[in-house]
Formats: sequence, C-alpha cells, structure tokens
Amino acid sequence: MGTAPTSAASSPAPSSPAASSPTARTLADLDTPFAVVDVHRTRRNIERLRARAERLGVALRPHVKTAKSPDAAALLHDCAPGPVTVSTLAEAEAFADAGHRDITYAVGIEPRKLPRVIALLRRGVTLRVLLDSTEQAMFVASAARAAGVTVPAQIEIDCDGHRGGLRPDAPGLTGIGRALDDAGCLDGVLTHAGESYFCHTTEEQRAAARNERDAAVAAAERLRAAGLTVATVSVGSTPTAHAADDLTGVTELRAGNYVFFDLVMAGLGVCDLDDLALSVVVTVIGHRPEYGWIVTDGGWMAMSRDRGTAAQAQDQGYGLVADLSGALIPNLVMTAASQEHGTLTARNGADLPELPIGTRLRVLPNHACATAAQHHGYHIIDGARGPAAVPRVQAYWPRVSGW
Amino acid sequence: MGTAPTSAASSPAPSSPAASSPTARTLADLDTPFAVVDVHRTRRNIERLRARAERLGVALRPHVKTAKSPDAAALLHDCAPGPVTVSTLAEAEAFADAGHRDITYAVGIEPRKLPRVIALLRRGVTLRVLLDSTEQAMFVASAARAAGVTVPAQIEIDCDGHRGGLRPDAPGLTGIGRALDDAGCLDGVLTHAGESYFCHTTEEQRAAARNERDAAVAAAERLRAAGLTVATVSVGSTPTAHAADDLTGVTELRAGNYVFFDLVMAGLGVCDLDDLALSVVVTVIGHRPEYGWIVTDGGWMAMSRDRGTAAQAQDQGYGLVADLSGALIPNLVMTAASQEHGTLTARNGADLPELPIGTRLRVLPNHACATAAQHHGYHIIDGARGPAAVPRVQAYWPRVSGW
Repeated sequence: MGTAPTSAASSPAPSSPAASSPTARTLADLDTPFAVVDVHRTRRNIERLRARAERLGVALRPHVKTAKSPDAAALLHDCAPGPVTVSTLAEAEAFADAGHRDITYAVGIEPRKLPRVIALLRRGVTLRVLLDSTEQAMFVASAARAAGVTVPAQIEIDCDGHRGGLRPDAPGLTGIGRALDDAGCLDGVLTHAGESYFCHTTEEQRAAARNERDAAVAAAERLRAAGLTVATVSVGSTPTAHAADDLTGVTELRAGNYVFFDLVMAGLGVCDLDDLALSVVVTVIGHRPEYGWIVTDGGWMAMSRDRGTAAQAQDQGYGLVADLSGALIPNLVMTAASQEHGTLTARNGADLPELPIGTRLRVLPNHACATAAQHHGYHIIDGARGPAAVPRVQAYWPRVSGW
Repeated sequence: MGTAPTSAASSPAPSSPAASSPTARTLADLDTPFAVVDVHRTRRNIERLRARAERLGVALRPHVKTAKSPDAAALLHDCAPGPVTVSTLAEAEAFADAGHRDITYAVGIEPRKLPRVIALLRRGVTLRVLLDSTEQAMFVASAARAAGVTVPAQIEIDCDGHRGGLRPDAPGLTGIGRALDDAGCLDGVLTHAGESYFCHTTEEQRAAARNERDAAVAAAERLRAAGLTVATVSVGSTPTAHAADDLTGVTELRAGNYVFFDLVMAGLGVCDLDDLALSVVVTVIGHRPEYGWIVTDGGWMAMSRDRGTAAQAQDQGYGLVADLSGALIPNLVMTAASQEHGTLTARNGADLPELPIGTRLRVLPNHACATAAQHHGYHIIDGARGPAAVPRVQAYWPRVSGW
C-alpha cells in the first residue's frame, strides 16, 4: 500500500510501517499519489505565528482541522499538549486520546452530539461548545443540568456576514448569555473573519482583523454590561491572525491553515510559496503533445476538487508543479483533473518541459485543508537537512478522519 | 463514532458495529454528517444497464471507482464476482480479496506500479493494464518477460480529446501493438468518451456513443490489419452507455457512476432525480434569517468541493435538499460550504421552510464519485420496503480508499 490505514479516531503514531520499511526511505520509494509534509516549513510557520501571538499578548489556540494530526499538533505548543480548536467530535476524541485537555469544538452544537461532548467532559477534557441561538443555549443548559456537569459554551459572533453567529448588537445576545450563565455554562464569545479570505491586500486584512476584534470585544462588553462574566474572547482566521496589529480585549487567537499554508494564502500575500509545507507526489503517466498536455496519476482524488485560487488574480488551476526536490518548475500548472488523472500545461507561452513517463513531481495545492483530507496521512521530509534531489522520508503522520 | 474505520485495502463486511448496534437502527440514530445509499435505487440502476448491455449484445464491466465497495459490487453480476474496472491498485487488491478475478486497471501504467500488478497476476487475477506509448509497452513487455508472466495490456484510444490515449489513426498504434504482442501481452483497446459529460441532449449522447464505438473499432481493425489479435474492444462512460444504440464490434461496455447516479447525470437527462441512490444526512445547526440562510453541519468535507452542475443549465449549488424520508424540499438548495458548515437557501422566490435546529435532512450531491470519497462507507437503507419518515438502516458498506 502507498498509504497506511486510518481510523475515525486514530491514535498518534510516529511512523507507519510503510515509511519505516527498508523499501520506503525516500520520496521515490512509495507508490503515487501520496501527501508529503516538509516538517521544517511546518515548524517555521508555527514559530512565526507563535511569536506574533506572544507580541500581541494573546494565547494561541490553533485549529487542528487542517493537518488533523496529533503528530503535527505536538509541534504547536513546544511539544506539550496545549489549547486547540477542532472541527469535528472525531477530532476532539482523537486529540483527547493524544493528551489534549483544552479543546474548542468550533461548529454550532446540535442536541444529538451532546452525549459525546459530555463523555469528553467526564474524561477531564475542557471541551468548549459553540452556539448562536436561544434554542441551543436551552438544550445545552438542560443537558448540563441533567448530567450534573458544566458544558463550557461560547456564543458565536458574526463579524462579517460570512456564516453563523449573532451580530454583536443582536437583540438576543444577552438573553442567550443569561440562559447559559444560569446553568454555569457561559464561557465567552468567539468570532471568525471568514471573509478575510477575500481580502487581497495587507491593509484590507488588517482592517478585517480590527473588525473581527471589535465585533468580539463589543459582544463581550455587552454581556459584561448585563452583569455576565465573559472569560474567553476568541478571534481568528489565518489572514487576520497574520495581519492583526492590536488585539486589546481579545484573550485568544485561532488559526489553522497556517501550519501548512497553500496557494490561496500565497495569493493573498499571507505567506510565500516557499512556506508551503504540503504537497502531493505524482508520477507522469503520459504525454499529449498535440494538446500541450503532460498526464499524471494525481487527479482530484489526490488534490481535491478545491479551486480556491480561481477567485484570485492569479488562478493556479489545481496547483503549481515542483520537481521531487521541491523546486518549482517555471510556468508548469496542473490545469485539469479527472478522478485519477491530472493534466499539466505550460503557461505564459513557455515550452512544456521534457518529463518522461515515470518522472515524479510534487504539486502544491490550492487549499491545504481540502487536499490533506484526501489522504490517510503524511510522509514527512525535513527541509532543514538541506536540499535533496530525492528527499528522505523521516516519518509517517496519520490523519484523523470521519465525524 | 458516526462512521466506521476504513483501510487502504479493506475487506468487505456486510455491516458495521455502528449500524448493527441497538442504538443505530434508523437515519435518526447516527451522528451527522454521514453517507446513505438506497439499495433499492442502486439495484434498479444496476438492472437498467445490465438489461441494456444484454440487448446490445456486449459484456458489462462496471467501473467500481464510484462506490469502491465490494458489497455494492456484489450486486453487479447476479451476486457472483464478475468483470470490473478499477481506478487504483488499492481497489484492485481489495476487489481481488473479495473474490474478483477479472479486473481492468484503467489508468495509464507507470513502471513503479508493475510489481503490484505482477503480484496480483500471480494470485490468479487477470489484471489488465492500460497504456498509450511505446515507452510503456516496452517496460510492460520487459517486466512480463523478467517475471515470466503475461501482463494483459490494452492500448488506450482517444475518441474525443478528453484525456489520455492515441487517436485511432495515430502513427505509433501498430508499433505499440506489436511490442505488446511480441511479449504475449496484447489484450485489446479501450476508450472512454469523457466529453459525453458535456453532451446535454440524448441525441448528442447517442452521437458520442457512436463516435466512441467507431474510434475503438477503428483502432482494433488497424491492429488486426497489421496481423495482431485484438480480443477486447472496450468502450464506455455513464452517458454513452445509456445512449448507445449499436455496439457492433465492441466486446465490452464500462460505466461506473450509474450505480448511484447524481445531479450531474440528472442534469444531462441520463437519469431522473428519484434514481439518485447516494445522499448525505446533515443536521440543521443554525438560522440566519437576515441573509435567508439555514446552516447545517454538512460542509465540503461531507459533500466534496465538486460543483459539476455549475457547468449545466441548472446549477444545483452543492446539492438539492430532501427530508429524511428522501422527499425533495421544493426550491431548497445547498448554495455554500465551509469545511463543516453548509448553507441552504431558497430559490425562485420561495420562502425558507421552517426547519428547527436538530432537523435532519438529506443532500443529493453533484458528483457521486467525489461525495462518496469523503466518507468511510455507506449506511444502507432499502426504499423497496416502502416510504418511511425515518428509514431504517439495514447494513453498513465500507469503502476502499487510498492508492
């Protein structure tokens, strides 16, 4: 097998049999397609935001929904389990198994999921839930009372019309706060500047960060003015986390994508292309010179159908193409995908490079969260060991999947 | 866990612990999101194409890349393993484990994958490989001779400029045929009318089917005229398989998507909406009346990023929405997706229906192959048992994944 099995709640494993076997020592030794992570770039990306949060005087609660890997999460907080955000209860359970005790489940809660929330709380995990309606506050309060536990709950605030949440001035806000507080469950407020993914300049991203902070702090102040205690004021998205210049009133910062970054983030100027830690190794399986195509064995099953850069000034197709060492091949782009076929074409009038059948390439994805989700785990290389034509595989990190 | 673990080469299991446990007897008893298959519709779709192939006088070799489920494949050939097409070697290995002995791997072969091909041949599986270059023919012939086995190989023919293959009149065709024949490896020709997914009328689809047949037969005749034996003449795509009126000269028909069908196929008129066998169960987690949104816990992680209907006359967003019984809710469409959030909106000026938090819905996908791939397996219901407000779960079918 090219990749190792995964499970809905896999426990962390430092390396897979595939990666540690004598026949799988380099990126040339595994069957394509497969996902690769450069741990050197990952560490550098993590350190960059860690230092930012420290300068801004806020705690960092990374979102682990991108890598979904306890091994990657072990790098987030100086090799000790620290606060994390998750997007599924399967993640919450897997990260609890890996020793994490402070977890925010940042998707609106529904009644059917509360038994699993309460089971985690009983295991000693501080699992915070999110909600934006009186209806949810009532059933969370009711379930907490029935179980005899505190379910720490955050009220989702809508700062930019992106998705869920209440506007900071919504009439219902303080009523929800009071319903939670009556059951001892009010933890705070949380917002996410999802529209910052469409802010194409640093100044726009900085404005989005100010707006995100202002919305969260205004909501917290309204609740406090109503006599309620608000411990957590949580903000974040990868673009705003890297643009914020003042987080006064905020207690914690969230971001997820930054651990790997991707072409969408590079297109927004949040990172450089050489910060991209995730790529997919593919092999050339054909040529159609009459159409100007090189065909690979990496299609949308390996890359995902995400075309996030289609909305940016420079559409990067399904991804930019590098050689196996990671060096970008100028003007070569993956422009089409079937399930297990990728089509590479040259742009800007460039000639197609000579890449014989069997040539291995690395494709940098539009959206790391979506591409990573197509794989059971990551084969780890370490760019800090210096450039290598065929990088060695250091470890295998399995991913959590399912719900 | 809402879903069961999967593995790169899972063996078939009739049902999972989740589905057979006393707490998971209906679609209301599992944590959302999860994938559901109506086995009644699947059987009906399978029977429809089986009867067509019989009328046309060709063998049927279904592509199992959509369901990737040995349980689903067991329905294809009267409950006995029959010929199948696969898109990965992981599928080939899993289907061999499930008893299949006649498998075509329909993605161009590259040298690194030949040891797994040869291992399957040595297990008694007739595994056919695909190629479209002299380079590939040479290394297949060479590996076959070195291993002392026959590697049955098909030459990929390009009938419509969709992807890989040689045009039927390509100068290199007979040379490749001869190189394979010299090693005893020439099995036949294969083509796929991938452009038929963009044929929006039955007449266009019928023309695409004729063109597909003509290309494959012309290539076979050229090889035969050169003194070579061509056993297999394989054609197929879901639209052309359902439109073909004459397959003279063709020996086998392939199609994959038809087992589940999807909104893209319904948009092409290849099936009706009530033929769609795959859906994703989601739960309402919020309301944004100011924007006209209902928010669910099914985002692109559950649906995939596939937006295949965006290219059709009626864009269906990320999917049409039904209630838990499967009855479509008029004018309700999933129009946006984050990783774990879906946004439902009303179209054609319709009012948003009253769907309280906790309401379960079923979303019909754009592209079954892509949506199914986001899940570890399928919870099986049986529409033949009559309409049910909350259908019972009959079984769990795990999926094969990885490469």
